[in-house]
Amino acid sequence: MTKFVYSFNEGNKEMKTLLGGKGANLAEMTIIGLPVPLGFTVTTEACNFYYQDGKQIRQEIIDEIYSELKKIEEETGKIFGDTKNPLLVSVRSGAVFSMPGMMDTILNLGLNDEAVEGLAKITNNERFSYDSYRRFVQMFGDVVLEIPKYKFDYILENEKERNNVKLDTELTVENLKSIIQEYKILVKQEKRKQFPDDPKEQLLMAIKAIFNSWNNPRAVVYRKINDIPNNLGTAINIQSMVFGNMGDTSGTGVAFTRNPSTGEKKIFGEFLINAQGEDVVAGIRTPKTIERLKDIMPEIYDQFLELASLLEKHYKDMQDIEFTIERGTLYLLQTRNGKRTAAAAINIAVDMVKENIIDEKTAIMRIDPNQLEQLLHPTFDKESLARAEKIAQGLPASPGASSGKVYFNSDDVVRAVQNNDRAILVRLETSPEDIEGMAVAQGILTARGGMTSHAAVVARGMGKCCVSGCSELRIDEANKLFKVNGKIFNEGDYISLNGNTGCVYKGLINTSESQLSGNFGKLMDWADKYRTLKIRTNADTPMDAEIAVKFGAEGVGLCRTEHMFFDDERIPIVRQMIVSKSFDERKNALNKLLAFQKQDFADIFKVMRDKPVTIRLLDPPLHEFLPHSDEDIHQLAFQINTDFDSLREKINELKEVNPMLGHRGCRLAITYPEIYEMQVKAIITAAIEVRKETGIHVQPEIMVPLICHEKELNIIKKLIVDTAEEIIENMQTEIKYTIGTMIEVPRAALTADEIARHAEFFSFGTNDLTQTTFAFSRDDSGKFIGEYRKKEIFDKDPFERLDQAGVGKLMEIAIKLGKQTRGDLKLGICGEHGGEPESIYFCHNIGLHYVSCSPFRVPIARLAAARAAIIKKT
Amino acid sequence: MTKFVYSFNEGNKEMKTLLGGKGANLAEMTIIGLPVPLGFTVTTEACNFYYQDGKQIRQEIIDEIYSELKKIEEETGKIFGDTKNPLLVSVRSGAVFSMPGMMDTILNLGLNDEAVEGLAKITNNERFSYDSYRRFVQMFGDVVLEIPKYKFDYILENEKERNNVKLDTELTVENLKSIIQEYKILVKQEKRKQFPDDPKEQLLMAIKAIFNSWNNPRAVVYRKINDIPNNLGTAINIQSMVFGNMGDTSGTGVAFTRNPSTGEKKIFGEFLINAQGEDVVAGIRTPKTIERLKDIMPEIYDQFLELASLLEKHYKDMQDIEFTIERGTLYLLQTRNGKRTAAAAINIAVDMVKENIIDEKTAIMRIDPNQLEQLLHPTFDKESLARAEKIAQGLPASPGASSGKVYFNSDDVVRAVQNNDRAILVRLETSPEDIEGMAVAQGILTARGGMTSHAAVVARGMGKCCVSGCSELRIDEANKLFKVNGKIFNEGDYISLNGNTGCVYKGLINTSESQLSGNFGKLMDWADKYRTLKIRTNADTPMDAEIAVKFGAEGVGLCRTEHMFFDDERIPIVRQMIVSKSFDERKNALNKLLAFQKQDFADIFKVMRDKPVTIRLLDPPLHEFLPHSDEDIHQLAFQINTDFDSLREKINELKEVNPMLGHRGCRLAITYPEIYEMQVKAIITAAIEVRKETGIHVQPEIMVPLICHEKELNIIKKLIVDTAEEIIENMQTEIKYTIGTMIEVPRAALTADEIARHAEFFSFGTNDLTQTTFAFSRDDSGKFIGEYRKKEIFDKDPFERLDQAGVGKLMEIAIKLGKQTRGDLKLGICGEHGGEPESIYFCHNIGLHYVSCSPFRVPIARLAAARAAIIKKT
Repeated sequence: MTKFVYSFNEGNKEMKTLLGGKGANLAEMTIIGLPVPLGFTVTTEACNFYYQDGKQIRQEIIDEIYSELKKIEEETGKIFGDTKNPLLVSVRSGAVFSMPGMMDTILNLGLNDEAVEGLAKITNNERFSYDSYRRFVQMFGDVVLEIPKYKFDYILENEKERNNVKLDTELTVENLKSIIQEYKILVKQEKRKQFPDDPKEQLLMAIKAIFNSWNNPRAVVYRKINDIPNNLGTAINIQSMVFGNMGDTSGTGVAFTRNPSTGEKKIFGEFLINAQGEDVVAGIRTPKTIERLKDIMPEIYDQFLELASLLEKHYKDMQDIEFTIERGTLYLLQTRNGKRTAAAAINIAVDMVKENIIDEKTAIMRIDPNQLEQLLHPTFDKESLARAEKIAQGLPASPGASSGKVYFNSDDVVRAVQNNDRAILVRLETSPEDIEGMAVAQGILTARGGMTSHAAVVARGMGKCCVSGCSELRIDEANKLFKVNGKIFNEGDYISLNGNTGCVYKGLINTSESQLSGNFGKLMDWADKYRTLKIRTNADTPMDAEIAVKFGAEGVGLCRTEHMFFDDERIPIVRQMIVSKSFDERKNALNKLLAFQKQDFADIFKVMRDKPVTIRLLDPPLHEFLPHSDEDIHQLAFQINTDFDSLREKINELKEVNPMLGHRGCRLAITYPEIYEMQVKAIITAAIEVRKETGIHVQPEIMVPLICHEKELNIIKKLIVDTAEEIIENMQTEIKYTIGTMIEVPRAALTADEIARHAEFFSFGTNDLTQTTFAFSRDDSGKFIGEYRKKEIFDKDPFERLDQAGVGKLMEIAIKLGKQTRGDLKLGICGEHGGEPESIYFCHNIGLHYVSCSPFRVPIARLAAARAAIIKKT
Repeated sequence: MTKFVYSFNEGNKEMKTLLGGKGANLAEMTIIGLPVPLGFTVTTEACNFYYQDGKQIRQEIIDEIYSELKKIEEETGKIFGDTKNPLLVSVRSGAVFSMPGMMDTILNLGLNDEAVEGLAKITNNERFSYDSYRRFVQMFGDVVLEIPKYKFDYILENEKERNNVKLDTELTVENLKSIIQEYKILVKQEKRKQFPDDPKEQLLMAIKAIFNSWNNPRAVVYRKINDIPNNLGTAINIQSMVFGNMGDTSGTGVAFTRNPSTGEKKIFGEFLINAQGEDVVAGIRTPKTIERLKDIMPEIYDQFLELASLLEKHYKDMQDIEFTIERGTLYLLQTRNGKRTAAAAINIAVDMVKENIIDEKTAIMRIDPNQLEQLLHPTFDKESLARAEKIAQGLPASPGASSGKVYFNSDDVVRAVQNNDRAILVRLETSPEDIEGMAVAQGILTARGGMTSHAAVVARGMGKCCVSGCSELRIDEANKLFKVNGKIFNEGDYISLNGNTGCVYKGLINTSESQLSGNFGKLMDWADKYRTLKIRTNADTPMDAEIAVKFGAEGVGLCRTEHMFFDDERIPIVRQMIVSKSFDERKNALNKLLAFQKQDFADIFKVMRDKPVTIRLLDPPLHEFLPHSDEDIHQLAFQINTDFDSLREKINELKEVNPMLGHRGCRLAITYPEIYEMQVKAIITAAIEVRKETGIHVQPEIMVPLICHEKELNIIKKLIVDTAEEIIENMQTEIKYTIGTMIEVPRAALTADEIARHAEFFSFGTNDLTQTTFAFSRDDSGKFIGEYRKKEIFDKDPFERLDQAGVGKLMEIAIKLGKQTRGDLKLGICGEHGGEPESIYFCHNIGLHYVSCSPFRVPIARLAAARAAIIKKT
């Protein structure tokens, strides 16, 4: 026969599936000898039978419950339902995973108008007794009978006002009695039924309510999102009450075994004398810090320290402990692994390795890589933030916090910064023209574009705070102002951005740089020891590369050459090249660019030394480099000595309906081979010169973007080899370089066997691959992706977390086919997903050799890669 | 030992690989007893050995050649290289597939200054002898020595001029001698060598020249494009000469066994008396029709008719025969299957079935489905066309021929047509706003956009002539003119378009409607008998549907509801719906549209009767429906009672960077479910009402576009079912309808197992699937696709012919996964590829149930489907 009820001394912490998390923990605490009030757990199976039986609790389950109650009655001498010496119990839900929306706790169950008197007599404390009764009726009314809590609060507050008192503890027995009476009238009005007086009825109603709450909408949705099976069910814990509200030798509190904010190895917590648990969190009375317990009850304090240490060693992690003192006796009600900040998490994990409590792998598995983000960017000063007024909500496109004056174009930002102002660039959406302003701005705010819009990608690359897709903004770039919810912000007005939350605030908020402790470095060393995946960085400038190397990057996985084209000195030449009417004219402009590009590459090679540097040849549509306003077109016409009309015509010709799917990437090299020829010249010459100058064996990897057909790559590979070999021969030297391709178009993945014939490496460009696989433009998806999240079509934006079912499947196809052709094909990823932990696990599992991410995400990637390796091995 | 040389009586027509096409045919003709001049074939293997041996002809091959020559000498009594009675031969290449760029023919080989005298004596015809010699030196100089032909022509023409004659035949022996001398001087100057006098040297040089031409660039490229292996090699045919230029009892000609233009069963051809083969094609003398031979040489004529009939029966196809008459004796020099027009092809095939020469399947396999296009659209009158001036070249976007006055916007076209003018709509590119103009225009010409641009797709759907992507045009829509290569065309000027070739002509060219003969219908009946693939049509209007049904469509595979939105009466309501500020306002506008849409569907249902009608719910971005010019925005603002600025702001907000990947398709229904709700109401209500009114069991199939995730379809399917069931319940009736989805996004194909849970059918939208699989915008790819074709990255535009390696692979994945979930999943295609024969073969092979194409391509699809079924079975 199935057993549905387990006494706390029959279970242990491994029995979570059957007893729920809380029940298993209470059992564990009981069997290791801690002072846990007596109790038992109704299993998750009982919950499933409840649903199977059409929401009926089986008689055998009820029988088992009473049989366990009997045992408690025997040990305590109290009787459940008795009016003289009543046994009171708490009833709590306890699912395998804690779940928002589920019913939580009912305390003091077992009281009624008669038992309250018996309790008063036997405890010799009438006030305590009625206080407990008052709390029970309110809690039962709220969570079991589902009467809105504010209606009870209203009665309570009314009574306090009438008696001119502030604290609950100031209420007299008479006040409490009157409140209870009003509560019962409220229940009668709301439910058209009397409040249940029979403790057994109370207990069954409470159990049913908890079982029912397993299927309330919020819980169902939560399970769906988190892939928790519906048939897990919830357990219920029934435990004899201990009372912190029995006078000055009683109390209740919460404590962490270490500081959850810093990780310091020192007990951290607070408590209240003469109170029940909910008073600590309610915040009406101010709790005392746990150290004060030493003065008030020194023995209890010492006992608590000892138990806390025991618990931490037992669970091998920092514990969050709830305790109650009843008339000088300490009881532990709950323990669980404590939540902590990133800094604390690192310090605790590393300290615990030093203390021989856990090993290095466990330490690594204790840190959520995403948490590290907090440590790598500035944050708002908490006090300033509390006073700030939030004006809008956008997408958390690039983390960090920033404050500054708003400016509406790149030039104005640059000018403001030159005048020592802190500037926030506000744009409808950014384009490569804005790079200069973005580079010097404190932060970037856009009205359009999603998590991988131009603004988001570039900002993350720069480690710069950015809020994108803030669609509430009505930006008037011409008049240099934006409107949001009726407010107007003009150029020069202060705003602040939180790139971690997407919040936009009015005014200036102070920010502070977080410091990395030595333990952070230690943890990173361990991560490097266990990971097999290499971590590279996406870096377009020597500065980016330097930051990334400092953060541990082992190479550049993506150097976007086009970002080098926007420099003030170069852009006129780039434009001249684009609007050239003849091959010679274009070639002439390209020759001028050659020297610049060579220097760019040389500088990056010097930073990266003998680490590989993957350089992507020109990718964006040429149109992006051209001026758009009449004024700028006039200027360019003058510069390149042509007439306005024909220049504007040329610019219009280059416009595209869908530039993302247009004349860009390697397609540019099919029509204008001389562009790639120049870039290859610059790369190879720079590599040779740097080696001659410094002796460093630089490792250039030349990457061709947007390949969709092997013949494209075949043609371009020939161009690259011919160009490179000619230089190598002319310079009478040797240099190693490899040639590979992005896999960022579905067709490339589907025909990877053919493409691998010409490619020594594949780098998955999962930004574009996500765009084409979903047919989602990252610049436009902001308009509907919110609704998609709301309707739970996605639980994560696919531009943030790699879509394994679709995009991931294409990657797997590409890897399988590619390796068929070339066993030693090098495989990497350079999309934004390369810095997202879940995506990194996937990359590890499908056999990539490296991931490449923004410099600021390199530590996150290192940790995630280590976790992936550890998880896969175990 | 390998045999390298085969006498004509040793081979047969099955030996093409070894003997080449021509050699095998000559052998076949010889063994069935036709009068073929004696000869032999040097095999393709000999060619391969030639290359293996470093371009040397092996001695054993030379020996075999002389041994065969010996046999001919014995039979003819003539001696190769003799000066008294010289054996002259022709030397011709003969690859397995005929190939442009390869060397073709040398006649009269074996002559020199002495042998020409011998020949003159033995034939008693000095003029003939020198004429032959003159021809030989010229041909040898041109094709073997590679001296430009015009240099020989120049000498010849000079001599004619000097002697004041027009025809070659008027030249005297002395004239010919002088020409030959000058030819030889030319050879000496050009090659710094004497013209070879030794016939054996001539023969080896000719053989080498043919072998070398196998690898000349044009031939190599041709093989690459047509996937012909390089190692096939070419054979060489050496044949004793017969002479049509030996006086008035000699002659030469070409004839078809049936009329290649109409298919009429009557010999069709022409001949010249006293001429060699090249004179017939040279066009200096006008040949006589073959019937005239009856008068001149009645016996030869009868013999020829008999042989022609014998050949046709033997080859079971219409033959194209070359013949020569030497002094009253008929020789056949070549026979092959004759090229023919579409009309002739059909008539010949059907007639031959009637004549029991071939069976129905063979008849079907004889017709290239693409050829039918010629029969389904108007064509230019040939004489007018000859006089026309071509002004530009675009893409052949939609077949047919049209002439009219140019207009630069839809309204002007409509006005012109109302005034009984014939109009050609000329646009930079078309958009849905232009539909009305496109519908009434004779043809459409655009400067941008490829084979599946909006203009191309809509025009093909309408069966209307269209030339797209004509990038030479500089269109000035504001001033209503376009420039092309220095010429200006103003509104109202006449131009003509050939949609089959992409040519644009100046002025008016007359067009004529082709007639379908009864044999066409017969052929279609046979096709229907053998095909298993169903053929549906893409039709948005009852008119389209009617045409398609007439052409044999078995259902509508794609009815695009958005095209119904552009009607003058409706567009203001559509716009009101889009710019609505509230749900209620939008709902109100949608209610007004409901009546219109219901009528649209009812009309189509009535045409299609009990055939299935797949209706696609709204697909394009809402922005497409909005006005763009300030004037139009003002007007709309007035109509819907709002202010200009906020309306323009709203319109700007709806603009997208990449509309193709933006807020469209089912994404519209995720954000605005009420749009699809209205459409479903219209479909279901129309279906019920039509059934009530007519008793027809209409079969609506509701299709959701642009699904990328099963959860999208799940939500929308629920919306459709809820809406439909409510109507069905309210109207107290029953109606069958199915719900399915487009597969047009790679992710949908990759997760088709999940999507099939909610879909009763998949329809592959290969236009969009090609765009996303390649990352090619069909509106923009025109800019580079030309270069892609030129560089042979594609041999076909992937928007024209389904890319089997990429897009096709996704389709196969989708079918496999989809069927795993739902065994009876209905599968179709509604992209443009559904009307392209090669793509239809693929669709048949991967197991689709139907293809859907433009009405005018339905017959093509029927035939292609039959061929697919026949090919797969055999």
